[in-house]
Amino acid sequence: MADEAPFQFLHSELIQYITKSADSGDTENARNITKLEIMGFRVGQGLIERLTKDTVRFKDELDIMKFICKDFWTCVFKKQIDNLRTNHQGIYVLQDNKVRSLSQLSAGKQYLEQAPKYLAFTCGLVRGALTNLGVKSIVTAEVSVMPACKFQVMIQKM
Amino acid sequence: MADEAPFQFLHSELIQYITKSADSGDTENARNITKLEIMGFRVGQGLIERLTKDTVRFKDELDIMKFICKDFWTCVFKKQIDNLRTNHQGIYVLQDNKVRSLSQLSAGKQYLEQAPKYLAFTCGLVRGALTNLGVKSIVTAEVSVMPACKFQVMIQKM
Repeated sequence: MADEAPFQFLHSELIQYITKSADSGDTENARNITKLEIMGFRVGQGLIERLTKDTVRFKDELDIMKFICKDFWTCVFKKQIDNLRTNHQGIYVLQDNKVRSLSQLSAGKQYLEQAPKYLAFTCGLVRGALTNLGVKSIVTAEVSVMPACKFQVMIQKM
Repeated sequence: MADEAPFQFLHSELIQYITKSADSGDTENARNITKLEIMGFRVGQGLIERLTKDTVRFKDELDIMKFICKDFWTCVFKKQIDNLRTNHQGIYVLQDNKVRSLSQLSAGKQYLEQAPKYLAFTCGLVRGALTNLGVKSIVTAEVSVMPACKFQVMIQKM
């Protein structure tokens, strides 16, 4: 039995609850995705605070990103990010080859448009975690073949 | 770092999200608690299905309750129920001396009235799990001293 099951089930219910009205328009849809992102943000803030309570200070931005890819991801999803890339100018791409919240969906192309609502919470998680580590960012998700996903983190210089 | 942290943080956010309007009336309050209970119910259904996938058939009702107290509780809360009592006539009392969702609240009596919204999801969890094992029930929670709680399960004979 995977340890993250209670979290995953609760996450699914949350998505269902927030986006339940099937015939909601585009504006409503966007608003729901924002709500999920904000909830993820707050959960990410709480989690990173607890996770880093006893760690040493991070050397630099890259060091922080590595922590997100390893420790933070493992805490939430019980696996690490599969690939981390950066252009060394403030853009990081975190690739997860098997995103848990997507792995329940069929891989067919017709479900691609459903993906954003399953990823909004996770984008928020990353943004919240980074914010509490002093790194302001914009996090977006890009899916080409499910259940793989690339999370793009654009650091906002302050 | 406790494994259940992502679940707990998400649960807190959910409560916040559902009960956010501070000045909501009693009816609204009751409705929110019902919503939380129903979400717990559905999560409980999903979890128990996965948890019992490879277990042998349960001997009787008591055997099922023991499974809830041990395996099911451990899966969600990383601890077992501390005490299980029954009158052997369809009433079971599950005592948890440290309910995770309550342990964030101060123990003062003035917070007791806040307790129901933190317990509704858990009551639903138990009811959902039991339902999928073929046991229809009513589950209520009683708090006298936080963060301890007694969950009362009344089996509904079908």
